[in-house]
Amino acid sequence: MQVYLNGEYIDHADAKVSVDDRGFLFADGVYEVVRVYDGHPFLMKPHIARMKDGLRALQIDTSSIDDLGQIAERLLRENNLTEGDATIYAQVSRGAAPRKHAFPPNTAPTLYVAAKRFTNHPASWFENGVAAITVPDNRWTRCDIKSIALLPNVLANQAAHAAGAFEALFVKDGVVIEGSHSNLFAVLDGKLITYPKSNYILAGITRTLVIELARELNLPFAEESLLWERLGDVEEMFLSGTTTEVLPVTTVDGKPVGNGRVGAITRQLVNAYARRAHPQVSVSA
Amino acid sequence: MQVYLNGEYIDHADAKVSVDDRGFLFADGVYEVVRVYDGHPFLMKPHIARMKDGLRALQIDTSSIDDLGQIAERLLRENNLTEGDATIYAQVSRGAAPRKHAFPPNTAPTLYVAAKRFTNHPASWFENGVAAITVPDNRWTRCDIKSIALLPNVLANQAAHAAGAFEALFVKDGVVIEGSHSNLFAVLDGKLITYPKSNYILAGITRTLVIELARELNLPFAEESLLWERLGDVEEMFLSGTTTEVLPVTTVDGKPVGNGRVGAITRQLVNAYARRAHPQVSVSA
Repeated sequence: MQVYLNGEYIDHADAKVSVDDRGFLFADGVYEVVRVYDGHPFLMKPHIARMKDGLRALQIDTSSIDDLGQIAERLLRENNLTEGDATIYAQVSRGAAPRKHAFPPNTAPTLYVAAKRFTNHPASWFENGVAAITVPDNRWTRCDIKSIALLPNVLANQAAHAAGAFEALFVKDGVVIEGSHSNLFAVLDGKLITYPKSNYILAGITRTLVIELARELNLPFAEESLLWERLGDVEEMFLSGTTTEVLPVTTVDGKPVGNGRVGAITRQLVNAYARRAHPQVSVSA
Repeated sequence: MQVYLNGEYIDHADAKVSVDDRGFLFADGVYEVVRVYDGHPFLMKPHIARMKDGLRALQIDTSSIDDLGQIAERLLRENNLTEGDATIYAQVSRGAAPRKHAFPPNTAPTLYVAAKRFTNHPASWFENGVAAITVPDNRWTRCDIKSIALLPNVLANQAAHAAGAFEALFVKDGVVIEGSHSNLFAVLDGKLITYPKSNYILAGITRTLVIELARELNLPFAEESLLWERLGDVEEMFLSGTTTEVLPVTTVDGKPVGNGRVGAITRQLVNAYARRAHPQVSVSA
């Protein structure tokens, strides 16, 4: 597999960064994952825009990703990913410099990009839903930055896997706000809700698309808090994310969501997402 | 400079980790910095014990650092650091594996160790004190784990540097709890205080030593909160840390601490620390 690292296209096995890279020492960087359908990067523009926002928040030169679109295209070609599903992973760190917390002067950022075949989740997950657990949100308060400081997400996701669940849902101050690597939507009192865009959650690209689709479908929708104490009243639930797509959740902490089956609103959005991701299918449908 | 990486002693310039290393992708690891005085690692045992606690918290095999003491000794020898001041930096990550949040099976941890010459802070800083600023604590709630997920610390420390200060003090819920890379002590109403050991701060090795020294000196001491609103009443203030040692703070947010000069209790502890770090000096004194 060919990957891109700091100006070079090299074999993945040779792609190494200095032990002084601030991505390795300080989690001083941001990343993006872009979905590729049939060789076409999906929603590349908003991903690049969000990455630039993150770079600005970290005061890393945004021009470091000026060529990201072209790099991604070339990696897709060189790795024979111009058909079928794939992902593009891009990460920028502040670069390699002698270890000191404060920003080092005149350090070139590290840019790493990889394109890989992606095997979608089993169809049965979309038909029957997946399990989730709730965990206390112990993360920092700038979750709007898609940083590589992902240790809390790793530990939460591992807790989910250890419990046989797909996702861990973070509960902050009594509110279920998002997953360890996905955003969260619920249907409560007949209305679709998701936690308001803020510094406490990542403004997911797929989250934005789902809101757009919900509006197109004239579904009642609001950015509102899902109180943990109202979990038992939730009628439907699903996750959204770049690799997650729109994925129904049918149990939380071992208890069924609603009647334990994928609900009507969720199903509409799963289908609407699929039509958007695979427009050629929707045309023939 | 020779460093240690995954079983090999190699030149620092050749010390590179895979782009798939979870230290680079997820901040999935812990680190320690050990001070070396005249070739002798200072308080190595508690540093190793804390690192093992961190590894346990992350469910990484603690045997990965079984040889850390020997590795450090060899690096000190090979890099001609058997005299004078130096530091040992050690980092363990969960290792390299295809990117997925949950723990990968059967992955060998990455161990990186470096020993470097250390130039102590200027004597004038210890005589006159340094400046600090306060910043909101936006970190996660497991600051007791010395993890490499240091982005919040980097941003806070950078804010201090941009303001011409040495350290940024995190304010959590109205309490000034610790610095971005040091613990915090203050003298208030004649009593030495520091924030209680908890999940919100790092249990600094030097912090523990300072408490021990304060007890030996019969100084009135308690683990108590320093309310932000009482900053104006603080009589003395200092930082503690492995590279920071015991470092007086004489201004916070541009305002003098007490009378703006290094206080008597701070001075006693600066000296007591120096005697402990350089016992041969204390014997001859």
